[in-house]
Amino acid sequence: MSHLTSLRAFLDTQNVDGLYFVRTDAHGTENLPDYEEFLQFVTGFTGSAGVMIITQDRATLFVDGRYTLQAPAEVNTAEWEIVLWEKPKLEAWLAEHMAGKTIGYDALRMSIEGIEALEKHVKVQPLTQSPLIIWQSRPASAAQPIVPHAIEFAGEAVAEKLTRIGAAIAAKKAEVALITMLDSVAWAFNLRGSDIPFCPLFYGAALVAADGTATLYTQTTVPELPSSVRIKSYDALANDLKNISKTHKTILLDKAKTNAAWVQAVQHSGVEIVWDKDPVIALKAIKNVTELANLRIAHKKDAAAFKAFHAWFAREAHKGTLTELDVVEALAGFRMDAGALGLSFPTIAGAGGNGAIVHYRATPKTNAKLETGSLLLLDSGAQYHEGTTDITRTYAVGTPSTQMIRHNTLVLKAHIGLSIAQFPIGTTGVQLDAITRAPLWAQGLDFDHGTGHGVGSYLCVHEGPCSISKRGTVPLEAGMVLTNEPGLYIEGQYGIRIENMMVVQKTGDAIAPQRDMLNFETLTRVPYDSRLIDRALFTDAELCWFEQQQHI
Amino acid sequence: MSHLTSLRAFLDTQNVDGLYFVRTDAHGTENLPDYEEFLQFVTGFTGSAGVMIITQDRATLFVDGRYTLQAPAEVNTAEWEIVLWEKPKLEAWLAEHMAGKTIGYDALRMSIEGIEALEKHVKVQPLTQSPLIIWQSRPASAAQPIVPHAIEFAGEAVAEKLTRIGAAIAAKKAEVALITMLDSVAWAFNLRGSDIPFCPLFYGAALVAADGTATLYTQTTVPELPSSVRIKSYDALANDLKNISKTHKTILLDKAKTNAAWVQAVQHSGVEIVWDKDPVIALKAIKNVTELANLRIAHKKDAAAFKAFHAWFAREAHKGTLTELDVVEALAGFRMDAGALGLSFPTIAGAGGNGAIVHYRATPKTNAKLETGSLLLLDSGAQYHEGTTDITRTYAVGTPSTQMIRHNTLVLKAHIGLSIAQFPIGTTGVQLDAITRAPLWAQGLDFDHGTGHGVGSYLCVHEGPCSISKRGTVPLEAGMVLTNEPGLYIEGQYGIRIENMMVVQKTGDAIAPQRDMLNFETLTRVPYDSRLIDRALFTDAELCWFEQQQHI
Repeated sequence: MSHLTSLRAFLDTQNVDGLYFVRTDAHGTENLPDYEEFLQFVTGFTGSAGVMIITQDRATLFVDGRYTLQAPAEVNTAEWEIVLWEKPKLEAWLAEHMAGKTIGYDALRMSIEGIEALEKHVKVQPLTQSPLIIWQSRPASAAQPIVPHAIEFAGEAVAEKLTRIGAAIAAKKAEVALITMLDSVAWAFNLRGSDIPFCPLFYGAALVAADGTATLYTQTTVPELPSSVRIKSYDALANDLKNISKTHKTILLDKAKTNAAWVQAVQHSGVEIVWDKDPVIALKAIKNVTELANLRIAHKKDAAAFKAFHAWFAREAHKGTLTELDVVEALAGFRMDAGALGLSFPTIAGAGGNGAIVHYRATPKTNAKLETGSLLLLDSGAQYHEGTTDITRTYAVGTPSTQMIRHNTLVLKAHIGLSIAQFPIGTTGVQLDAITRAPLWAQGLDFDHGTGHGVGSYLCVHEGPCSISKRGTVPLEAGMVLTNEPGLYIEGQYGIRIENMMVVQKTGDAIAPQRDMLNFETLTRVPYDSRLIDRALFTDAELCWFEQQQHI
Repeated sequence: MSHLTSLRAFLDTQNVDGLYFVRTDAHGTENLPDYEEFLQFVTGFTGSAGVMIITQDRATLFVDGRYTLQAPAEVNTAEWEIVLWEKPKLEAWLAEHMAGKTIGYDALRMSIEGIEALEKHVKVQPLTQSPLIIWQSRPASAAQPIVPHAIEFAGEAVAEKLTRIGAAIAAKKAEVALITMLDSVAWAFNLRGSDIPFCPLFYGAALVAADGTATLYTQTTVPELPSSVRIKSYDALANDLKNISKTHKTILLDKAKTNAAWVQAVQHSGVEIVWDKDPVIALKAIKNVTELANLRIAHKKDAAAFKAFHAWFAREAHKGTLTELDVVEALAGFRMDAGALGLSFPTIAGAGGNGAIVHYRATPKTNAKLETGSLLLLDSGAQYHEGTTDITRTYAVGTPSTQMIRHNTLVLKAHIGLSIAQFPIGTTGVQLDAITRAPLWAQGLDFDHGTGHGVGSYLCVHEGPCSISKRGTVPLEAGMVLTNEPGLYIEGQYGIRIENMMVVQKTGDAIAPQRDMLNFETLTRVPYDSRLIDRALFTDAELCWFEQQQHI
């Protein structure tokens, strides 16, 4: 019996016309442990985002533009239709195929915001059981140990953090908040785990009260915490939420992040809900001086790894035998030698035309050789106790063409333009994104991804709320850590991306500004491939920054 | 009896606790004829935006940041309190002073959107009579003649315009639309008038049907129009709206622009309302080739006026006797000599520290002399049959200081940066605003107004929907005409602003771009004061553009 047949038999018992299932867990996590990879189990699709809708006569997998080639290669297209997942298309699809029908969802693996979006188009109802019960070979979910994130790395004690979170909750006129994002929980309690690939997180959630007391729900034992924190079993959370009205009148919930099962438990209790963002997100984004001092050390370790990698690459690449996976393995080895605890995301090593596929990931099937006269795009990062790194460099293999040099220098001009930008308080990512792209636009060039994203502090490599992109509406503040990664992609030929990490800081007094300004300190300390640079294209200011950075 | 006393007596007859009155007319017009200047009649305040709230024991005038000095100088502060008009303050004020009370409004002089904003804070109800009935000395509202805007200027016949407007209405699933913005009405019917100062508009409104037929409501006779247009009296409109359900099932109304009296008439009829933007706004913003060819001629006429003005200024300014009003009068004279039909807005001539007051307008009271060693900021524009102009130049009087030259050159760098910018289709004004400001931000400098606004075609000098500013979320399209006016203001010393008009165009094929790009053609042909420019601060690209523009 195929998984699809089992699922349809399950749906028959549920009094719904179909199933809507998003690839995530109870916490809205992006990187999933194997025992949460249900969408992959059912469809075969290994991408990091997807939705499946299954009815008795139709099975549809929605994937985004990154996966238009990968999804049909992985999925049995005799059973499944694959649809590009864009909002208007998904809505049109629902209107065409599901109008008037009832669709079931796994309440533990879907946010209330997601359900509200669905409800505009179809009738929805929670399933009485999770569809994961059909997954007989599901791997065991043994909780991994939870370890302390020491104060010399965190820079702020748990009690102080909880006091600040509590004040933020009080400011929203709530008595308590339910914190479910795994990186928010890890940050608030100075704890780390290893339940999730690439991110040092553990499954847990917390109720934090306005007075700074908290209850932390975890699957395993927890290192010592202040007396203001009570520890309970993860499994006790659902019941505590059902009874929350016995102790509280108001609770803050994040509509985009809290799963429907927990929201419905709270609603059932009758407590008043204050809908607002998880209050930890804004606090966690501003790194303290200890976190920043440590992050500089993490980047020195990264630089040491790259020094070894550059020597190895100079010795090996010209032989013409290296493959993308050789590069991935070598760099990971140098990173571990430099003290990394692991990678912060799967390394992207794109040789030649593979570099032009923005979210390319080499597999034994696609693994390309690094041909002479080609470019290698290498986007990687590591986890250190001192912090999380993310860096991209682009390398010439053999002698690059004049166009490669010109294009790489133009991307570098965009990258430097952002590195040296100064801007008033209140400036948002949309504005900085445009300033970054301007030198590429001037040449009729552009790239189809954001310029930068927030990065966690020994947490996730993608962290909100700030970003430098067309959707970056949050004003940047001193202490926010972001990437700077413009690119250029020539389909079938090569991809170029150049990425550093930077921290927003207040401008020094030196230039006596008319008003308070911000700028960036660059954290990454890895040189650029000098064979790919035409200094004649630089302005004086760009050249000055480049020379200093290249010889740090 | 003071006007305030009369108003309070009037309110006594209206069963409300207070009056909310916005400075506008039945069409949301900014420039008002004298017989609509009721807020000025009651308060004495002559600014171009304001709200008054009057109760039996309190009279409050809300003005924006432009008028914090002017309002107290014009208004009797023994009777009136003056409050800075910002959204949070207005809301807080209403919550503090009007909670639970009922406020009356003049339904003909308030948009439905404005009422909905008020309703969040107070109970509101329409007054049974307009408060203007207390204005016994109100000037007569004699309608001025309506004249044709010839096809050789408009470039598109009325029937064709109405067909396109009708198609836009059909696309929104409405049968008919009520068009009330005076510039939309003038554009749609290729008519102009002189009811409104500085804008060639007439009081009128129209019902345009999806099939391209229309009824035009005017106060006076109208030149010949196609047979698809029926002419009716302006006074017939209210009754036709009450009966609209007899002929139509759906009507498109613009929530931000349609006054409450007309909306309530439509609602009373029982017809279904489609809330959407006035469909003329988007069509009118894209100028056709005839309008653009004419606009280039208008700018040549403006350039001829400035040539004469520059000669006069060179002869007169060094004598040390010129005043701001002398400059205003002289430039207006040269404009009329060049064929202008009138000015497009009140000229801003700010000498010395007056130039740093962004919306300064010289009066006999404030009229300053042009002192040697100072700067003059001169922002002006004219109406020609061929188009509407808006230009700002900044002049040195005598020898400028090193700082003046540096500041002026930095503003010019921002201005040139936008002039030569190239950007992909879909780029918005927010993005271009940031690119413009970047050279100023780099020096710790900034300015507190938008970088550019749309301009009408022998219509209003301010026209939507496009703008280059932090609020400019509309993507720019080929054919849109915008200003480019960065500035810098040193309080008490001087103001610098440099403004051209530009049209968005598709980039030529010359550089073989990776994707379709847009850029600007500069329309203004007036040189910059060369004494205020330090060429050493320019990049090669900036200098190249500057030299070409300076000698056009």
